[in-house]
Amino acid sequence: MTEVGEFSLIDRATARRRQPATTEIGPGDDAAVVRAPDGRVAMSIDMLVEGRHFRLDWSSPRDVGAKAVAQNAADIAAMGARPTAFVVGIGCPPTTASSVLDELSDGIGSAAEELGAGVVGGDLVQAPSLIVSVTVLGDLEGRAAVERSGARDGDVVAVAGPLGRSAAGYALLREGITDGPLVDSHRVPTPPYASALAAARGGAHAMIDVSDGLLADVGHIAAASGVVVDIDSAAVPVDPAVARVAAERGVVAALDWTLTGGEDHAFAATFADGTVPAGWTVIGTVRAASPDAGVLVDGVSWTGSPSWESFT
Amino acid sequence: MTEVGEFSLIDRATARRRQPATTEIGPGDDAAVVRAPDGRVAMSIDMLVEGRHFRLDWSSPRDVGAKAVAQNAADIAAMGARPTAFVVGIGCPPTTASSVLDELSDGIGSAAEELGAGVVGGDLVQAPSLIVSVTVLGDLEGRAAVERSGARDGDVVAVAGPLGRSAAGYALLREGITDGPLVDSHRVPTPPYASALAAARGGAHAMIDVSDGLLADVGHIAAASGVVVDIDSAAVPVDPAVARVAAERGVVAALDWTLTGGEDHAFAATFADGTVPAGWTVIGTVRAASPDAGVLVDGVSWTGSPSWESFT
Repeated sequence: MTEVGEFSLIDRATARRRQPATTEIGPGDDAAVVRAPDGRVAMSIDMLVEGRHFRLDWSSPRDVGAKAVAQNAADIAAMGARPTAFVVGIGCPPTTASSVLDELSDGIGSAAEELGAGVVGGDLVQAPSLIVSVTVLGDLEGRAAVERSGARDGDVVAVAGPLGRSAAGYALLREGITDGPLVDSHRVPTPPYASALAAARGGAHAMIDVSDGLLADVGHIAAASGVVVDIDSAAVPVDPAVARVAAERGVVAALDWTLTGGEDHAFAATFADGTVPAGWTVIGTVRAASPDAGVLVDGVSWTGSPSWESFT
Repeated sequence: MTEVGEFSLIDRATARRRQPATTEIGPGDDAAVVRAPDGRVAMSIDMLVEGRHFRLDWSSPRDVGAKAVAQNAADIAAMGARPTAFVVGIGCPPTTASSVLDELSDGIGSAAEELGAGVVGGDLVQAPSLIVSVTVLGDLEGRAAVERSGARDGDVVAVAGPLGRSAAGYALLREGITDGPLVDSHRVPTPPYASALAAARGGAHAMIDVSDGLLADVGHIAAASGVVVDIDSAAVPVDPAVARVAAERGVVAALDWTLTGGEDHAFAATFADGTVPAGWTVIGTVRAASPDAGVLVDGVSWTGSPSWESFT
């Protein structure tokens, strides 16, 4: 595989896919040109490494591509923006089967297409293991970005999307169970993008992508905003499938997975009381730091399992 | 090193550096927000892998960071745009010394600062070797992008910037010579950004970053434009230092390095005759494909050394 192969790789990710109207110049030149209708772009990068963020015996190359797109798109949605364009850097050993690169590219291309975004450029290089680096641009559609730092005394905190499903699916994979909806949730997250946009349109004060675990990520809002977020554990939605798997195992509480499981790419946000949009579940309240900012569960620090760590 | 370390890494790349006016929201949230004053952005990604694109016994981590920024910025400049923002994904083994990451980040941050661009986000993950993935955004300042496909019958082709210096420096490094300006040119390219902007402002018809070697990259213009580019070898500027090293060795012609050496990140462009800006050297002419598009040297196909390949 020569480095010239980048062209065919990107061709594969974009072939038979129409570029969206935001793509002014697509792949094939020194750089792409993407429209930024409101004069700004949101921008984020994530890097996935084989053996650390995915395993090819657990996930298909297509899953890996779809996951890379979803977790980047979730970062954009958490700002209240809509993804418009992706560029993709792929590193792989020279022995990598071309079918792996084909499927990876197809996973990236079809996930981007579902979001209405273009894959506008890429770079393919030799590397010791499979590495996928995705950068995403997003359009704020004229709104202010929803930052982590906007939570205010008197807000409520709410969540939208799956919680604990990726952690439960990961536990099943470790047991050798490779099928089923929880395992699928681990392989390819399905962030509730429409809920994030509804939050932004509805005037959310702060928002974050739940990738490290609900408590950790709400903690980022608390720290950036200088507030205390108190979560009412009884109000936290526990996914029935997660509850069932936890009960069958008997060694982990479903609430642990729900509060600390990573990689669900749900969203957490704070709103002025009474302004929470449909699709969001209120799980707690925000008050001024007293004196330290942080996150509490039922008024006290959480003493359950620590936050999610990717496998190594 | 935990993945949380990304925050401190990006802090290091941005600490004590003022974000430019184009950075509306910098690092630390789910995504950055960058201004796109003319309603479009140019965008490109490049990935550098240790052992393939750089060696840490030949280049300092600071050099690697500066090189990653320069080669991305050259892609943006080749479209006629000005870099505004970078995001950086870094993969590294858990045993990587923090000084390596510090210096790498500093090299990225200071090179971006010199360009007037911000480092607005990043991701730091564990990987089997050091990997640097940089995505750059650029501002076209209201101009049309200068694509590869715009060369026309009757144009002249011209170059700006160093040619063959990186290849000569690489040859010296392989001999164990680790000091001197040619070696420095290999470690950190210095694209003539101002010349690329002058070309765009002066109405260049086509432009490309010379990264694969002059003939290969002019060949990309020829193929994209459907033209023949005929280079007059006597007009090609041979760098005196490259000529000296070639003469001393006696095994390679300076013209070979000049025509086919990679990674100089000079620029090649075509212009209507009589519109070539200062700083550019005319090296040949463009004519309609007859019948095949391609690049010739003195009217015939080049039979010297093949184009540049990265080491390993």
